[in-house]
Amino acid sequence: MKLTEFRQQKEIAVQEELGRQIQALAIPAVLKESMNYSLQAGGKRIRPILLLAVLEEKGVQHPDALKVACAIEMIHTYSLIHDDLPSMDNDDLRRGQPTNHKVYGEAAAILAGDALLTYSFGLIARLETVPAEDRLRLIDLLSTAAGAEGMVGGQVLDMEGEERKLSLEELEQVHQMKTGALLTYSIVAGAVLAGCPPGEIPVYAAFGRHLGLAFQIQDDILDVTGSSAELGKTAGKDAASDKSTYPGLLTLPKAQEKLVHHAEAAKTALQKLPGDHLLLEQLTDLIVHRTS
Amino acid sequence: MKLTEFRQQKEIAVQEELGRQIQALAIPAVLKESMNYSLQAGGKRIRPILLLAVLEEKGVQHPDALKVACAIEMIHTYSLIHDDLPSMDNDDLRRGQPTNHKVYGEAAAILAGDALLTYSFGLIARLETVPAEDRLRLIDLLSTAAGAEGMVGGQVLDMEGEERKLSLEELEQVHQMKTGALLTYSIVAGAVLAGCPPGEIPVYAAFGRHLGLAFQIQDDILDVTGSSAELGKTAGKDAASDKSTYPGLLTLPKAQEKLVHHAEAAKTALQKLPGDHLLLEQLTDLIVHRTS
Repeated sequence: MKLTEFRQQKEIAVQEELGRQIQALAIPAVLKESMNYSLQAGGKRIRPILLLAVLEEKGVQHPDALKVACAIEMIHTYSLIHDDLPSMDNDDLRRGQPTNHKVYGEAAAILAGDALLTYSFGLIARLETVPAEDRLRLIDLLSTAAGAEGMVGGQVLDMEGEERKLSLEELEQVHQMKTGALLTYSIVAGAVLAGCPPGEIPVYAAFGRHLGLAFQIQDDILDVTGSSAELGKTAGKDAASDKSTYPGLLTLPKAQEKLVHHAEAAKTALQKLPGDHLLLEQLTDLIVHRTS
Repeated sequence: MKLTEFRQQKEIAVQEELGRQIQALAIPAVLKESMNYSLQAGGKRIRPILLLAVLEEKGVQHPDALKVACAIEMIHTYSLIHDDLPSMDNDDLRRGQPTNHKVYGEAAAILAGDALLTYSFGLIARLETVPAEDRLRLIDLLSTAAGAEGMVGGQVLDMEGEERKLSLEELEQVHQMKTGALLTYSIVAGAVLAGCPPGEIPVYAAFGRHLGLAFQIQDDILDVTGSSAELGKTAGKDAASDKSTYPGLLTLPKAQEKLVHHAEAAKTALQKLPGDHLLLEQLTDLIVHRTS
Protein backbone atom coordinates (compact mmCIF):
# COMPACT_ATOMS: atom_id res chain seq x y z
CA MET A 1 0.00 0.00 0.00
CA LYS A 2 1.21 3.52 -0.73
CA LEU A 3 2.11 5.60 2.28
CA THR A 4 -0.31 8.42 1.53
CA GLU A 5 -3.25 6.06 1.28
CA PHE A 6 -2.12 4.11 4.36
CA ARG A 7 -1.81 7.27 6.42
CA GLN A 8 -5.19 8.61 5.32
CA GLN A 9 -6.90 5.34 6.18
CA LYS A 10 -5.21 4.98 9.53
CA GLU A 11 -5.65 8.62 10.56
CA ILE A 12 -9.39 8.22 10.10
CA ALA A 13 -9.44 4.88 11.89
CA VAL A 14 -7.50 6.32 14.87
CA GLN A 15 -9.70 9.40 15.03
CA GLU A 16 -12.84 7.27 15.04
CA GLU A 17 -11.56 4.78 17.60
CA LEU A 18 -10.47 7.59 19.94
CA GLY A 19 -13.95 9.05 19.65
CA ARG A 20 -15.58 5.69 20.39
CA GLN A 21 -13.42 5.08 23.46
CA ILE A 22 -14.22 8.44 25.06
CA GLN A 23 -17.87 8.37 24.00
CA ALA A 24 -18.37 5.12 25.89
CA LEU A 25 -17.28 6.63 29.21
CA ALA A 26 -19.89 7.57 31.83
CA ILE A 27 -18.08 10.69 33.06
CA PRO A 28 -18.76 14.37 33.81
CA ALA A 29 -19.56 16.31 30.64
CA VAL A 30 -16.79 18.90 30.96
CA LEU A 31 -14.18 16.16 31.43
CA LYS A 32 -15.39 14.30 28.36
CA GLU A 33 -15.33 17.51 26.32
CA SER A 34 -11.89 18.45 27.49
CA MET A 35 -10.47 14.97 26.77
CA ASN A 36 -12.13 14.89 23.36
CA TYR A 37 -11.03 18.41 22.47
CA SER A 38 -7.35 17.52 22.57
CA LEU A 39 -7.76 14.01 21.14
CA GLN A 40 -9.72 15.32 18.17
CA ALA A 41 -7.42 18.29 17.54
CA GLY A 42 -5.72 16.15 14.93
CA GLY A 43 -1.99 16.07 14.69
CA LYS A 44 -0.02 13.67 12.59
CA ARG A 45 -0.81 10.51 14.60
CA ILE A 46 2.78 9.46 14.00
CA ARG A 47 2.92 7.03 16.91
CA PRO A 48 -0.25 5.09 15.99
CA ILE A 49 0.80 5.05 12.33
CA LEU A 50 4.24 3.67 13.17
CA LEU A 51 2.66 0.88 15.23
CA LEU A 52 0.19 0.05 12.50
CA ALA A 53 2.87 0.22 9.80
CA VAL A 54 4.92 -2.48 11.55
CA LEU A 55 1.89 -4.78 11.50
CA GLU A 56 1.10 -3.89 7.89
CA GLU A 57 4.62 -4.80 6.78
CA LYS A 58 4.41 -8.10 8.65
CA GLY A 59 1.10 -8.78 6.92
CA VAL A 60 -0.65 -9.14 10.29
CA GLN A 61 -4.27 -8.03 10.63
CA HIS A 62 -4.62 -7.65 14.39
CA PRO A 63 -8.16 -6.98 15.69
CA ASP A 64 -6.90 -4.90 18.65
CA ALA A 65 -3.83 -3.15 17.27
CA LEU A 66 -5.87 -0.01 16.67
CA LYS A 67 -6.74 0.12 20.37
CA VAL A 68 -3.11 -0.13 21.43
CA ALA A 69 -2.32 2.61 18.91
CA CYS A 70 -5.04 4.75 20.48
CA ALA A 71 -3.74 4.09 24.00
CA ILE A 72 -0.37 5.47 22.87
CA GLU A 73 -2.03 8.48 21.25
CA MET A 74 -3.90 9.16 24.50
CA ILE A 75 -0.62 9.21 26.39
CA HIS A 76 0.97 11.46 23.78
CA THR A 77 -2.05 13.77 23.98
CA TYR A 78 -1.99 13.91 27.79
CA SER A 79 1.69 14.87 27.63
CA LEU A 80 0.93 17.74 25.25
CA ILE A 81 -1.89 19.00 27.50
CA HIS A 82 0.35 19.01 30.58
CA ASP A 83 3.42 20.38 28.75
CA ASP A 84 1.37 23.32 27.44
CA LEU A 85 0.31 24.42 30.95
CA PRO A 86 1.35 27.90 32.14
CA SER A 87 3.72 26.44 34.75
CA MET A 88 5.41 24.31 32.07
CA ASP A 89 5.94 25.52 28.50
CA ASN A 90 3.08 28.04 28.72
CA ASP A 91 1.80 27.59 25.19
CA ASP A 92 -1.42 29.20 23.97
CA LEU A 93 -1.53 27.40 20.63
CA ARG A 94 -1.25 23.76 19.68
CA ARG A 95 -1.89 22.51 16.17
CA GLY A 96 -3.19 25.97 15.33
CA GLN A 97 -5.88 25.86 18.01
CA PRO A 98 -6.05 27.22 21.56
CA THR A 99 -4.42 24.81 24.01
CA ASN A 100 -6.63 22.77 26.33
CA HIS A 101 -6.19 25.00 29.39
CA LYS A 102 -6.98 28.08 27.30
CA VAL A 103 -10.39 26.60 26.54
CA TYR A 104 -11.26 24.62 29.69
CA GLY A 105 -9.04 26.19 32.35
CA GLU A 106 -6.00 24.77 34.06
CA ALA A 107 -7.80 22.43 36.47
CA ALA A 108 -9.82 20.72 33.74
CA ALA A 109 -6.71 20.48 31.55
CA ILE A 110 -4.67 18.80 34.30
CA LEU A 111 -7.51 16.39 35.04
CA ALA A 112 -8.16 15.60 31.36
CA GLY A 113 -4.48 14.70 31.06
CA ASP A 114 -4.61 12.56 34.20
CA ALA A 115 -7.71 10.80 32.89
CA LEU A 116 -6.20 10.04 29.47
CA LEU A 117 -3.03 8.67 31.04
CA THR A 118 -4.97 6.49 33.48
CA TYR A 119 -7.38 5.22 30.84
CA SER A 120 -4.67 4.06 28.44
CA PHE A 121 -3.39 1.35 30.78
CA GLY A 122 -6.85 -0.08 31.40
CA LEU A 123 -7.55 -0.06 27.67
CA ILE A 124 -4.55 -2.32 27.02
CA ALA A 125 -5.29 -4.54 30.04
CA ARG A 126 -8.74 -5.35 28.61
CA LEU A 127 -7.66 -6.48 25.11
CA GLU A 128 -8.74 -10.09 25.11
CA THR A 129 -7.32 -10.92 21.67
CA VAL A 130 -3.80 -10.19 22.95
CA PRO A 131 -2.20 -12.99 25.05
CA ALA A 132 -2.09 -12.04 28.74
CA GLU A 133 1.72 -12.08 28.90
CA ASP A 134 1.93 -9.73 25.90
CA ARG A 135 -0.57 -7.31 27.43
CA LEU A 136 1.51 -7.21 30.60
CA ARG A 137 4.65 -6.63 28.60
CA LEU A 138 2.98 -3.81 26.66
CA ILE A 139 1.86 -2.21 29.94
CA ASP A 140 5.27 -2.61 31.57
CA LEU A 141 7.11 -1.11 28.59
CA LEU A 142 4.57 1.70 28.23
CA SER A 143 4.86 2.62 31.90
CA THR A 144 8.64 2.84 31.53
CA ALA A 145 8.56 4.73 28.21
CA ALA A 146 5.98 7.26 29.41
CA GLY A 147 7.16 7.62 33.00
CA ALA A 148 9.98 9.05 35.10
CA GLU A 149 12.65 7.09 33.21
CA GLY A 150 11.17 8.14 29.88
CA MET A 151 8.84 10.91 28.75
CA VAL A 152 8.11 12.53 32.14
CA GLY A 153 11.80 12.50 33.09
CA GLY A 154 12.63 13.97 29.68
CA GLN A 155 10.24 16.87 30.26
CA VAL A 156 11.94 17.55 33.63
CA LEU A 157 15.36 17.61 31.94
CA ASP A 158 13.99 19.69 29.07
CA MET A 159 12.82 22.35 31.50
CA GLU A 160 16.18 22.28 33.30
CA GLY A 161 17.75 22.77 29.87
CA GLU A 162 16.06 26.15 29.62
CA GLU A 163 18.05 27.33 32.59
CA ARG A 164 21.53 26.21 31.53
CA LYS A 165 23.29 25.20 28.33
CA LEU A 166 23.29 21.43 27.85
CA SER A 167 26.10 19.41 26.27
CA LEU A 168 25.25 17.58 23.06
CA GLU A 169 25.25 14.33 25.01
CA GLU A 170 22.79 15.72 27.57
CA LEU A 171 20.59 17.11 24.82
CA GLU A 172 20.50 13.72 23.13
CA GLN A 173 19.46 12.15 26.43
CA VAL A 174 16.66 14.70 26.87
CA HIS A 175 15.36 13.98 23.39
CA GLN A 176 15.73 10.24 23.82
CA MET A 177 13.64 10.36 26.99
CA LYS A 178 11.14 13.05 26.06
CA THR A 179 10.24 11.99 22.51
CA GLY A 180 12.32 8.95 21.65
CA ALA A 181 11.04 6.60 24.33
CA LEU A 182 7.35 6.74 23.34
CA LEU A 183 8.14 6.71 19.60
CA THR A 184 10.34 3.67 20.08
CA TYR A 185 7.62 2.09 22.19
CA SER A 186 5.11 2.51 19.36
CA ILE A 187 7.33 0.52 17.03
CA VAL A 188 8.19 -2.15 19.60
CA ALA A 189 4.50 -2.51 20.51
CA GLY A 190 3.74 -3.11 16.83
CA ALA A 191 6.43 -5.80 16.73
CA VAL A 192 5.06 -7.46 19.89
CA LEU A 193 1.51 -7.45 18.50
CA ALA A 194 2.78 -8.84 15.17
CA GLY A 195 4.31 -11.76 17.05
CA CYS A 196 7.87 -10.97 15.89
CA PRO A 197 10.53 -13.36 17.19
CA PRO A 198 12.36 -12.02 20.28
CA GLY A 199 15.58 -11.41 18.32
CA GLU A 200 13.87 -8.85 16.10
CA ILE A 201 12.58 -6.64 18.93
CA PRO A 202 15.96 -4.96 19.68
CA VAL A 203 16.34 -4.21 15.96
CA TYR A 204 12.95 -2.51 15.88
CA ALA A 205 13.99 -0.64 19.04
CA ALA A 206 17.22 0.54 17.36
CA PHE A 207 15.19 1.72 14.37
CA GLY A 208 12.92 3.56 16.79
CA ARG A 209 15.78 5.24 18.64
CA HIS A 210 17.30 6.67 15.46
CA LEU A 211 13.90 7.65 14.13
CA GLY A 212 13.05 9.36 17.43
CA LEU A 213 16.26 11.38 17.36
CA ALA A 214 15.71 12.32 13.70
CA PHE A 215 12.17 13.39 14.60
CA GLN A 216 13.35 15.60 17.43
CA ILE A 217 16.27 17.14 15.52
CA GLN A 218 13.82 18.07 12.76
CA ASP A 219 11.58 19.55 15.45
CA ASP A 220 14.45 21.74 16.65
CA ILE A 221 15.28 22.69 13.04
CA LEU A 222 11.67 23.60 12.24
CA ASP A 223 11.57 25.90 15.25
CA VAL A 224 14.33 27.89 13.48
CA THR A 225 13.25 27.56 9.85
CA GLY A 226 9.47 27.13 10.03
CA SER A 227 6.68 29.68 10.41
CA SER A 228 4.10 29.70 13.20
CA ALA A 229 1.35 29.26 10.60
CA GLU A 230 2.95 26.10 9.20
CA LEU A 231 3.78 24.68 12.62
CA GLY A 232 0.46 25.48 14.26
CA LYS A 233 2.44 26.66 17.26
CA THR A 234 4.73 29.57 18.06
CA ALA A 235 7.93 29.33 15.96
CA GLY A 236 11.28 30.65 17.23
CA LYS A 237 10.32 29.85 20.78
CA ASP A 238 13.45 27.83 21.53
CA ALA A 239 15.84 30.61 20.55
CA ALA A 240 13.73 33.23 22.34
CA SER A 241 13.87 31.19 25.55
CA ASP A 242 17.57 30.37 25.09
CA LYS A 243 16.74 26.69 25.10
CA SER A 244 19.39 24.12 24.19
CA THR A 245 18.68 22.70 20.72
CA TYR A 246 20.60 20.89 17.97
CA PRO A 247 20.87 23.96 15.71
CA GLY A 248 21.81 26.07 18.75
CA LEU A 249 24.57 23.72 19.88
CA LEU A 250 25.78 22.58 16.45
CA THR A 251 24.79 25.28 13.90
CA LEU A 252 21.94 24.67 11.47
CA PRO A 253 23.94 22.85 8.74
CA LYS A 254 25.51 20.47 11.25
CA ALA A 255 22.13 19.78 12.81
CA GLN A 256 20.88 18.89 9.32
CA GLU A 257 23.82 16.50 8.88
CA LYS A 258 22.95 14.87 12.18
CA LEU A 259 19.35 14.53 11.05
CA VAL A 260 20.41 12.75 7.86
CA HIS A 261 22.78 10.53 9.85
CA HIS A 262 20.02 9.28 12.15
CA ALA A 263 17.56 8.81 9.29
CA GLU A 264 20.13 6.66 7.47
CA ALA A 265 20.94 4.70 10.64
CA ALA A 266 17.23 4.05 11.11
CA LYS A 267 16.98 2.63 7.56
CA THR A 268 20.13 0.55 8.06
CA ALA A 269 18.55 -1.05 11.13
CA LEU A 270 15.54 -2.05 9.03
CA GLN A 271 17.78 -3.95 6.63
CA LYS A 272 18.62 -6.39 9.43
CA LEU A 273 14.98 -7.48 9.47
CA PRO A 274 13.41 -9.96 7.03
CA GLY A 275 10.99 -8.75 4.36
CA ASP A 276 10.72 -5.35 2.76
CA HIS A 277 10.19 -2.16 4.74
CA LEU A 278 8.94 0.30 2.19
CA LEU A 279 6.33 1.77 4.53
CA LEU A 280 8.74 2.32 7.43
CA GLU A 281 11.36 3.75 5.06
CA GLN A 282 8.82 6.14 3.59
CA LEU A 283 7.70 7.09 7.09
CA THR A 284 11.32 7.84 7.98
CA ASP A 285 11.63 10.12 4.95
CA LEU A 286 8.37 11.79 5.85
CA ILE A 287 9.58 12.53 9.37
CA VAL A 288 12.84 13.96 8.03
CA HIS A 289 11.20 16.12 5.37
CA ARG A 290 8.12 17.23 7.27
CA THR A 291 7.45 20.95 7.46
CA SER A 292 5.20 20.90 10.52
CA MET B 1 -2.82 -9.51 65.68
CA LYS B 2 -3.96 -6.33 67.37
CA LEU B 3 -4.79 -3.44 65.06
CA THR B 4 -2.27 -1.03 66.58
CA GLU B 5 0.60 -3.45 66.13
CA PHE B 6 -0.61 -4.40 62.64
CA ARG B 7 -0.79 -0.78 61.56
CA GLN B 8 2.62 0.10 62.98
CA GLN B 9 4.24 -2.85 61.22
CA LYS B 10 2.55 -2.18 57.90
CA GLU B 11 3.12 1.57 57.95
CA ILE B 12 6.84 0.95 58.26
CA ALA B 13 6.79 -1.75 55.60
CA VAL B 14 4.91 0.53 53.17
CA GLN B 15 7.21 3.46 53.87
CA GLU B 16 10.28 1.33 53.23
CA GLU B 17 8.93 -0.29 50.07
CA LEU B 18 7.94 3.10 48.65
CA GLY B 19 11.48 4.31 49.33
CA ARG B 20 13.00 1.26 47.64
CA GLN B 21 10.85 1.61 44.54
CA ILE B 22 11.75 5.25 43.97
CA GLN B 23 15.40 4.79 44.94
CA ALA B 24 15.80 2.18 42.20
CA LEU B 25 14.77 4.61 39.45
CA ALA B 26 17.42 6.19 37.20
CA ILE B 27 15.71 9.57 36.91
CA PRO B 28 16.50 13.29 37.25
CA ALA B 29 17.36 14.22 40.84
CA VAL B 30 14.68 16.87 41.28
CA LEU B 31 11.99 14.47 40.06
CA LYS B 32 13.12 11.78 42.46
CA GLU B 33 13.15 14.27 45.34
CA SER B 34 9.74 15.61 44.51
CA MET B 35 8.21 12.11 44.21
CA ASN B 36 9.86 11.01 47.45
CA TYR B 37 8.86 14.16 49.31
CA SER B 38 5.16 13.45 48.97
CA LEU B 39 5.44 9.68 49.34
CA GLN B 40 7.43 10.02 52.55
CA ALA B 41 5.23 12.76 54.01
CA GLY B 42 3.45 10.02 55.92
CA GLY B 43 -0.28 9.99 56.13
CA LYS B 44 -2.34 7.16 57.46
CA ARG B 45 -1.64 4.67 54.64
CA ILE B 46 -5.26 3.62 54.93
CA ARG B 47 -5.47 2.12 51.45
CA PRO B 48 -2.36 -0.10 51.76
CA ILE B 49 -3.44 -1.14 55.26
CA LEU B 50 -6.92 -2.11 54.07
CA LEU B 51 -5.42 -4.25 51.29
CA LEU B 52 -2.98 -5.92 53.67
CA ALA B 53 -5.68 -6.43 56.32
CA VAL B 54 -7.80 -8.45 53.88
CA LEU B 55 -4.84 -10.76 53.25
CA GLU B 56 -4.04 -10.98 56.97
CA GLU B 57 -7.59 -12.04 57.76
CA LYS B 58 -7.48 -14.67 55.04
CA GLY B 59 -4.19 -15.93 56.48
CA VAL B 60 -2.45 -15.37 53.15
CA GLN B 61 1.22 -14.33 53.15
CA HIS B 62 1.61 -12.89 49.64
CA PRO B 63 5.16 -11.98 48.55
CA ASP B 64 3.99 -9.11 46.32
CA ALA B 65 0.96 -7.74 48.16
CA LEU B 66 3.10 -4.96 49.62
CA LYS B 67 3.99 -3.81 46.11
CA VAL B 68 0.35 -3.63 45.03
CA ALA B 69 -0.36 -1.71 48.25
CA CYS B 70 2.43 0.72 47.33
CA ALA B 71 1.13 1.12 43.78
CA ILE B 72 -2.20 2.23 45.27
CA GLU B 73 -0.46 4.60 47.70
CA MET B 74 1.45 6.12 44.76
CA ILE B 75 -1.83 6.80 42.97
CA HIS B 76 -3.35 8.26 46.12
CA THR B 77 -0.26 10.45 46.59
CA TYR B 78 -0.31 11.67 42.97
CA SER B 79 -3.95 12.65 43.41
CA LEU B 80 -3.09 14.70 46.51
CA ILE B 81 -0.23 16.46 44.70
CA HIS B 82 -2.46 17.43 41.77
CA ASP B 83 -5.48 18.30 43.93
CA ASP B 84 -3.35 20.69 46.02
CA LEU B 85 -2.24 22.72 42.98
CA PRO B 86 -3.16 26.42 42.82
CA SER B 87 -5.56 25.84 39.92
CA MET B 88 -7.34 23.10 41.89
CA ASP B 89 -7.83 23.24 45.67
CA ASN B 90 -4.89 25.63 46.15
CA ASP B 91 -3.63 24.15 49.40
CA ASP B 92 -0.38 25.24 51.02
CA LEU B 93 -0.35 22.56 53.71
CA ARG B 94 -0.76 18.81 53.58
CA ARG B 95 -0.18 16.59 56.60
CA GLY B 96 1.24 19.62 58.37
CA GLN B 97 3.93 20.20 55.76
CA PRO B 98 4.16 22.50 52.74
CA THR B 99 2.48 20.94 49.71
CA ASN B 100 4.62 19.59 46.88
CA HIS B 101 4.27 22.62 44.59
CA LYS B 102 5.15 24.95 47.47
CA VAL B 103 8.50 23.19 47.75
CA TYR B 104 9.32 22.17 44.17
CA GLY B 105 7.18 24.50 42.08
CA GLU B 106 4.10 23.73 40.04
CA ALA B 107 5.83 22.13 37.07
CA ALA B 108 7.79 19.63 39.18
CA ALA B 109 4.66 18.88 41.22
CA ILE B 110 2.57 18.13 38.12
CA LEU B 111 5.34 15.93 36.71
CA ALA B 112 5.94 14.11 40.00
CA GLY B 113 2.23 13.28 40.04
CA ASP B 114 2.31 12.11 36.43
CA ALA B 115 5.35 9.96 37.16
CA LEU B 116 3.80 8.31 40.23
CA LEU B 117 0.59 7.54 38.35
CA THR B 118 2.47 6.10 35.37
CA TYR B 119 4.83 4.04 37.53
CA SER B 120 2.09 2.34 39.51
CA PHE B 121 0.72 0.45 36.49
CA GLY B 122 4.14 -0.86 35.49
CA LEU B 123 4.81 -1.92 39.05
CA ILE B 124 1.75 -4.18 39.05
CA ALA B 125 2.43 -5.46 35.52
CA ARG B 126 5.84 -6.77 36.63
CA LEU B 127 4.71 -8.81 39.67
CA GLU B 128 5.69 -12.30 38.63
CA THR B 129 4.22 -14.03 41.69
CA VAL B 130 0.73 -12.86 40.69
CA PRO B 131 -0.95 -14.88 37.88
CA ALA B 132 -1.01 -12.91 34.62
CA GLU B 133 -4.82 -12.79 34.47
CA ASP B 134 -4.96 -11.41 38.03
CA ARG B 135 -2.39 -8.73 37.25
CA LEU B 136 -4.45 -7.65 34.24
CA ARG B 137 -7.58 -7.56 36.35
CA LEU B 138 -5.82 -5.47 39.00
CA ILE B 139 -4.64 -3.03 36.31
CA ASP B 140 -8.05 -2.85 34.65
CA LEU B 141 -9.86 -2.19 37.94
CA LEU B 142 -7.23 0.31 39.08
CA SER B 143 -7.48 2.24 35.84
CA THR B 144 -11.25 2.48 36.27
CA ALA B 145 -11.13 3.32 40.00
CA ALA B 146 -8.47 6.02 39.55
CA GLY B 147 -9.61 7.43 36.21
CA ALA B 148 -12.37 9.49 34.63
CA GLU B 149 -15.11 7.16 35.89
CA GLY B 150 -13.62 7.15 39.39
CA MET B 151 -11.21 9.42 41.23
CA VAL B 152 -10.41 11.92 38.46
CA GLY B 153 -14.10 12.27 37.55
CA GLY B 154 -14.88 12.73 41.24
CA GLN B 155 -12.41 15.60 41.49
CA VAL B 156 -14.06 17.26 38.48
CA LEU B 157 -17.50 16.94 40.13
CA ASP B 158 -16.08 18.07 43.47
CA MET B 159 -14.81 21.29 41.90
CA GLU B 160 -18.15 21.84 40.16
CA GLY B 161 -19.72 21.37 43.61
CA GLU B 162 -17.92 24.48 44.82
CA GLU B 163 -19.86 26.53 42.32
CA ARG B 164 -23.37 25.27 43.05
CA LYS B 165 -25.19 23.45 45.82
CA LEU B 166 -25.33 19.70 45.20
CA SER B 167 -28.20 17.43 46.15
CA LEU B 168 -27.42 14.71 48.69
CA GLU B 169 -27.52 12.16 45.89
CA GLU B 170 -25.01 14.14 43.83
CA LEU B 171 -22.77 14.61 46.85
CA GLU B 172 -22.80 10.88 47.49
CA GLN B 173 -21.79 10.29 43.88
CA VAL B 174 -18.92 12.76 44.18
CA HIS B 175 -17.64 11.02 47.29
CA GLN B 176 -18.14 7.58 45.81
CA MET B 177 -16.03 8.53 42.80
CA LYS B 178 -13.44 10.76 44.44
CA THR B 179 -12.59 8.72 47.54
CA GLY B 180 -14.78 5.61 47.51
CA ALA B 181 -13.57 4.10 44.25
CA LEU B 182 -9.89 3.83 45.22
CA LEU B 183 -10.69 2.76 48.80
CA THR B 184 -12.97 0.04 47.48
CA TYR B 185 -10.30 -0.96 44.99
CA SER B 186 -7.79 -1.43 47.82
CA ILE B 187 -10.08 -3.93 49.48
CA VAL B 188 -11.01 -5.73 46.27
CA ALA B 189 -7.33 -5.93 45.27
CA GLY B 190 -6.61 -7.58 48.62
CA ALA B 191 -9.38 -10.10 47.97
CA VAL B 192 -8.05 -10.83 44.45
CA LEU B 193 -4.52 -11.34 45.76
CA ALA B 194 -5.84 -13.58 48.56
CA GLY B 195 -7.47 -15.77 45.93
CA CYS B 196 -11.00 -15.24 47.28
CA PRO B 197 -13.73 -17.08 45.36
CA PRO B 198 -15.50 -14.84 42.78
CA GLY B 199 -18.71 -14.74 44.86
CA GLU B 200 -16.92 -12.96 47.71
CA ILE B 201 -15.55 -10.08 45.64
CA PRO B 202 -18.87 -8.16 45.41
CA VAL B 203 -19.25 -8.50 49.18
CA TYR B 204 -15.81 -6.99 49.74
CA ALA B 205 -16.77 -4.26 47.25
CA ALA B 206 -19.97 -3.52 49.20
CA PHE B 207 -17.93 -3.30 52.42
CA GLY B 208 -15.57 -0.91 50.62
CA ARG B 209 -18.38 1.31 49.33
CA HIS B 210 -19.87 1.82 52.79
CA LEU B 211 -16.45 2.27 54.35
CA GLY B 212 -15.53 4.82 51.68
CA LEU B 213 -18.67 6.84 52.33
CA ALA B 214 -18.10 6.68 56.09
CA PHE B 215 -14.53 7.84 55.52
CA GLN B 216 -15.63 10.82 53.46
CA ILE B 217 -18.50 11.82 55.74
CA GLN B 218 -16.04 11.84 58.65
CA ASP B 219 -13.74 13.97 56.48
CA ASP B 220 -16.54 16.49 55.99
CA ILE B 221 -17.37 16.38 59.71
CA LEU B 222 -13.73 16.92 60.72
CA ASP B 223 -13.55 19.98 58.51
CA VAL B 224 -16.25 21.47 60.78
CA THR B 225 -15.20 20.08 64.18
CA GLY B 226 -11.41 19.60 63.85
CA SER B 227 -8.57 22.09 64.22
CA SER B 228 -5.97 22.82 61.55
CA ALA B 229 -3.25 21.57 63.92
CA GLU B 230 -4.95 18.19 64.34
CA LEU B 231 -5.80 17.83 60.66
CA GLY B 232 -2.43 18.98 59.32
CA LYS B 233 -4.37 21.02 56.78
CA THR B 234 -6.58 24.10 56.85
CA ALA B 235 -9.79 23.37 58.80
CA GLY B 236 -13.09 25.08 57.99
CA LYS B 237 -12.14 25.31 54.34
CA ASP B 238 -15.33 23.68 53.07
CA ALA B 239 -17.63 26.15 54.83
CA ALA B 240 -15.42 29.09 53.85
CA SER B 241 -15.61 28.07 50.18
CA ASP B 242 -19.33 27.25 50.40
CA LYS B 243 -18.63 23.71 49.32
CA SER B 244 -21.37 21.09 49.46
CA THR B 245 -20.72 18.72 52.39
CA TYR B 246 -22.70 16.26 54.49
CA PRO B 247 -22.89 18.56 57.54
CA GLY B 248 -23.74 21.48 55.24
CA LEU B 249 -26.58 19.63 53.49
CA LEU B 250 -27.84 17.61 56.47
CA THR B 251 -26.76 19.43 59.68
CA LEU B 252 -23.95 18.05 61.82
CA PRO B 253 -26.01 15.58 63.93
CA LYS B 254 -27.67 14.07 60.86
CA ALA B 255 -24.29 13.75 59.14
CA GLN B 256 -23.09 11.87 62.21
CA GLU B 257 -26.11 9.56 61.97
CA LYS B 258 -25.28 8.91 58.33
CA LEU B 259 -21.70 8.14 59.30
CA VAL B 260 -22.82 5.55 61.84
CA HIS B 261 -25.26 4.07 59.30
CA HIS B 262 -22.51 3.45 56.73
CA ALA B 263 -20.09 2.10 59.33
CA GLU B 264 -22.74 -0.39 60.46
CA ALA B 265 -23.60 -1.33 56.88
CA ALA B 266 -19.90 -1.95 56.23
CA LYS B 267 -19.71 -4.31 59.20
CA THR B 268 -22.93 -6.07 58.15
CA ALA B 269 -21.39 -6.77 54.74
CA LEU B 270 -18.42 -8.43 56.46
CA GLN B 271 -20.73 -10.87 58.22
CA LYS B 272 -21.62 -12.38 54.84
CA LEU B 273 -18.02 -13.53 54.47
CA PRO B 274 -16.55 -16.65 56.09
CA GLY B 275 -14.11 -16.33 58.98
CA ASP B 276 -13.73 -13.53 61.49
CA HIS B 277 -13.11 -9.94 60.52
CA LEU B 278 -11.79 -8.33 63.65
CA LEU B 279 -9.11 -6.34 61.82
CA LEU B 280 -11.50 -4.92 59.21
CA GLU B 281 -14.07 -4.14 61.90
CA GLN B 282 -11.47 -2.35 63.98
CA LEU B 283 -10.31 -0.47 60.89
CA THR B 284 -13.89 0.60 60.27
CA ASP B 285 -14.14 1.93 63.84
CA LEU B 286 -10.83 3.68 63.44
CA ILE B 287 -12.00 5.44 60.30
CA VAL B 288 -15.23 6.53 62.00
CA HIS B 289 -13.52 7.78 65.16
CA ARG B 290 -10.40 9.30 63.64
CA THR B 291 -9.60 12.90 64.53
CA SER B 292 -7.34 13.63 61.59
